[in-house]
Amino acid sequence: MMKIALFGAGNVASHLYRAFSEGNYATVSQLFSRDPAKADFVSSETEVIADYAQLKDADLYLLAVSDDGIAEIAEKLEDRGNLVAHTSGSTGMEVLKKFQQHGVFYPLQTFSKNRELDYRTIPFCLEANSEENLEELKDLAKSISEAIYEVNSDQRRGLHLSAVFVNNFSNHLFTLGNSICKDKNLDFKILQPLIKETVSKLDVLLPADAQTGPALRNDQETIQKHLNSLTGDRKLVYKTLTDSIQKFHGKKL
Amino acid sequence: MMKIALFGAGNVASHLYRAFSEGNYATVSQLFSRDPAKADFVSSETEVIADYAQLKDADLYLLAVSDDGIAEIAEKLEDRGNLVAHTSGSTGMEVLKKFQQHGVFYPLQTFSKNRELDYRTIPFCLEANSEENLEELKDLAKSISEAIYEVNSDQRRGLHLSAVFVNNFSNHLFTLGNSICKDKNLDFKILQPLIKETVSKLDVLLPADAQTGPALRNDQETIQKHLNSLTGDRKLVYKTLTDSIQKFHGKKL
Repeated sequence: MMKIALFGAGNVASHLYRAFSEGNYATVSQLFSRDPAKADFVSSETEVIADYAQLKDADLYLLAVSDDGIAEIAEKLEDRGNLVAHTSGSTGMEVLKKFQQHGVFYPLQTFSKNRELDYRTIPFCLEANSEENLEELKDLAKSISEAIYEVNSDQRRGLHLSAVFVNNFSNHLFTLGNSICKDKNLDFKILQPLIKETVSKLDVLLPADAQTGPALRNDQETIQKHLNSLTGDRKLVYKTLTDSIQKFHGKKL
Repeated sequence: MMKIALFGAGNVASHLYRAFSEGNYATVSQLFSRDPAKADFVSSETEVIADYAQLKDADLYLLAVSDDGIAEIAEKLEDRGNLVAHTSGSTGMEVLKKFQQHGVFYPLQTFSKNRELDYRTIPFCLEANSEENLEELKDLAKSISEAIYEVNSDQRRGLHLSAVFVNNFSNHLFTLGNSICKDKNLDFKILQPLIKETVSKLDVLLPADAQTGPALRNDQETIQKHLNSLTGDRKLVYKTLTDSIQKFHGKKL
């Protein structure tokens, strides 16, 4: 069994812990957290520690902490010659360069602590400073998921940025949609079949080919009616995205 | 059986035709289209016509045409005393007021001609000028779907606007996400599990409670890195939506 010392007790760490526990390829021997009370998800097999001096040898030190946390641990952690990897989308691999063996083990998903996920579909984006270390991370990822990708730091930063657009920003559009419903005393669940179909279409169409609506068909009458009914922030978002759709699809007058 | 004369041969008309045909509550006796060649989805039970003079009596004249088309038909169509309804989200019921019996039969979904849909989950938003007409539309909607809502014209306009945010605008964010992937030589399918989870969360959380990301936690370092890596349109969309998230969640510095 691969022996892992896992750093962090947040959403990513708790889900990776659960994913490793479900398989029998790797075991988390120690969990390092500045706040051990947060590590309430570990079983008795795992020792919870908060002190670098208590850290034992492991095949992999896996840093599932915030970007600031990675930099701090990289500074304080001694290089023992074993593999050290972080799980961040927005942090380059070079932050770990003081360790002879290093890499990145980035699961591209949004993690909420109490939500069940199907780990087998989560894309793992891997990078390492040697072919051997990459293979080691690949074998670990394969024990959890069926979606393994090799991506470099520049690509990973692109994925993370792209994830902000498709996840954070889309979710905010759902929030604005919900706020319009609330103003009209309507239940947001009326919109859910539409949202689900919007996403289901991506199974067979590229998003650019699935685009519809007043912006795409340059329906100025509807666009003006909508703009007139909006104020402040929602109006600015409407205008910016309508312009962007028209520029992208070459419909700008 | 309820006898319907259906106006239109586009996406909405073709899907409603299919939905009615699958049930045995209503039958489309005539389909009116200015371009009969487009009505290639009808069976031999249905007469395709392009001339108002050929129009026969029916229980319902259902106008599944563009907003401009509704106004044109409302002008040219004689009132025979039967129920006349349109299927538009953005057009008020009053456009049909010359007809003694009138209403709205709005399916809130995005329709693509060759895509199969589960009609039972599509929300039908209904309005009519009398309780009796409303019941008639309700019975028809119930023969297709399990999601029936009574909404007035003002609410329906709100739903249509909301649909632009959650469907058209979200889809454009997927397009921008895809374009970032393309620049980095990455397959967009890496992002699909994330997109699916973003939407699945809405089954249990309101979108405002599901919000995550650098804007929400006011992670200025990441926001600046992202802005520096973007230009033009994508940058403007990033800035506008980041500001909007921070304003909505009260994180603005």
